[in-house]
Amino acid sequence: MALSTRLTERFRLAHPIISAPMAFAAGGRLASAVSDAGALGLLGGGYGDEAWLTRELDLVTPGRFGCGFITWSLAKKPELLDLALARKPVALFLSFGDPMAFADRIKASGAALICQVQTRHDAERALDCGADVIVAQGADAGGHGQARGTFALVPEIADLIAMRAPETLLCAAGGVGDGRGLAAALMLGADGVLVGSRLWASAEANVSAAMHAAALAATGDDTIRTQVMDLARKLDWPTHYTARVLRNAFTDRWHGREAELAQVADVEAENYRAAWAAGDPQRSNTFVGEVVGLIDRIEPAGDIIRAMVAEAEARLGRFA
Amino acid sequence: MALSTRLTERFRLAHPIISAPMAFAAGGRLASAVSDAGALGLLGGGYGDEAWLTRELDLVTPGRFGCGFITWSLAKKPELLDLALARKPVALFLSFGDPMAFADRIKASGAALICQVQTRHDAERALDCGADVIVAQGADAGGHGQARGTFALVPEIADLIAMRAPETLLCAAGGVGDGRGLAAALMLGADGVLVGSRLWASAEANVSAAMHAAALAATGDDTIRTQVMDLARKLDWPTHYTARVLRNAFTDRWHGREAELAQVADVEAENYRAAWAAGDPQRSNTFVGEVVGLIDRIEPAGDIIRAMVAEAEARLGRFA
Repeated sequence: MALSTRLTERFRLAHPIISAPMAFAAGGRLASAVSDAGALGLLGGGYGDEAWLTRELDLVTPGRFGCGFITWSLAKKPELLDLALARKPVALFLSFGDPMAFADRIKASGAALICQVQTRHDAERALDCGADVIVAQGADAGGHGQARGTFALVPEIADLIAMRAPETLLCAAGGVGDGRGLAAALMLGADGVLVGSRLWASAEANVSAAMHAAALAATGDDTIRTQVMDLARKLDWPTHYTARVLRNAFTDRWHGREAELAQVADVEAENYRAAWAAGDPQRSNTFVGEVVGLIDRIEPAGDIIRAMVAEAEARLGRFA
Repeated sequence: MALSTRLTERFRLAHPIISAPMAFAAGGRLASAVSDAGALGLLGGGYGDEAWLTRELDLVTPGRFGCGFITWSLAKKPELLDLALARKPVALFLSFGDPMAFADRIKASGAALICQVQTRHDAERALDCGADVIVAQGADAGGHGQARGTFALVPEIADLIAMRAPETLLCAAGGVGDGRGLAAALMLGADGVLVGSRLWASAEANVSAAMHAAALAATGDDTIRTQVMDLARKLDWPTHYTARVLRNAFTDRWHGREAELAQVADVEAENYRAAWAAGDPQRSNTFVGEVVGLIDRIEPAGDIIRAMVAEAEARLGRFA
């Protein structure tokens, strides 16, 4: 098995797959398992919990992992970038905000700069920042993102890259749940994929059993893009970002009633955070993408990656 | 050049491509050009204008075309189905509503029943109706649709079909703008694709030069899913459908102010319809999908199809 692309060559990987730096879920165990399987594992630096990040960085191998941050959140605690860079990541991943303020420092450290974008407009900006890899993330994805769909966003950004900076690599994100998605992403012009939900549903992810169970029971129809989780948690997400989660009583109650929710956010934030800490999929939310409809078991991350590559190769070979 | 799939075999096509029955845009000229190129051309029966349909049916060849209807609209003028079936279409295409009331009549006529769906739930219903082909249409598409993305919807429906009715064919719709999209759709498990916007941008489509020009100037970022066009036109679209169009002064003004718009809909409807009839992309809307960012010229439909297939073959061959 070997799907060789510019991504595998540049990062000396066995497989053209990067794991998404999912806040909370993507800790050192998952990143290490992904890298051990021959892909590139990313830690989810998330909202900037220094104790969490330090602990998880202790679980990965210098030179064999990457780290992701929520850009607008990192801007509030820029010292976390030094913390991560000191551990010699292969790549630093930024999403959800302007990467310019951090780009030079990352590139000077020797780490590759991976910029995740959700629009052609932001891909232009990522190229301005000297991104080594652009991840084109479509709305099909779980967690935060924007409105454009993966299927047309990827080739449009491929064309932009070809025109402006053809040495830049491209990964597709949002909807890649198995080997079909990997093969499709390569056909759309990507050099590899960023896998979130499918690796969220792995044995090594920091996810509660109850949330895993909720995901296994769901179809893609059961997801929704909304902002009510962020309003309830009083997180300062820029308003053009929504997040995809499993619909539940909480989203049914508040989606479409955001102004009302904002008025009771103090109480709701406490409730929501407690439920989140307890891993409760009913009173907080399960952050997964539409590929949840393709997931029917929780497996070790290495098995997921190997199966994905084998299936992609079989699909690609069928039309040879 | 030959991409052979179950779709090409079943319908004796040279290429696994069906043109979308876009209301207004997909007349007899476009459907004929598509069929002449070796794909399957569909007439857009749209909102049920009998004079229009009769005229366009005169432009196609019996046994070498198909016809599409908006299901909830057809229910108001069911006699149009007989009008279409009398011309011996290869296939009857239904989208946006429950196909059950028409399924038996279509299948009894000898035409294949193509059901376009936007959710797994509606795919289940299409299988209940005995659909010969399911089109899984993602939100990336232009015109009417729902929220799920093409990239994850297609494999999820492929799995459903494999489980429940494996002889049913599957086409992907929403984001297929070139050979990359065709190749990707095949990788995702589709037997072919339904192409809308890219053929809307053809010489044979019934589209004003001004709207074509607006599309050529746009990127995928410039599109939006909204309901304001339907509110302004006072069309009875079920509320779970939105439509993707190019953003313009009209959508900027009304999107998010739907209740206000409804109050002035009488006046707006008159203005909108007049602008629409004039092909004005500023005071009415250009119905295209996110692939608008991949389109840089208006070409004959046959050239578009041949280029799409050649590019798909080249992509698929590269990983052989």
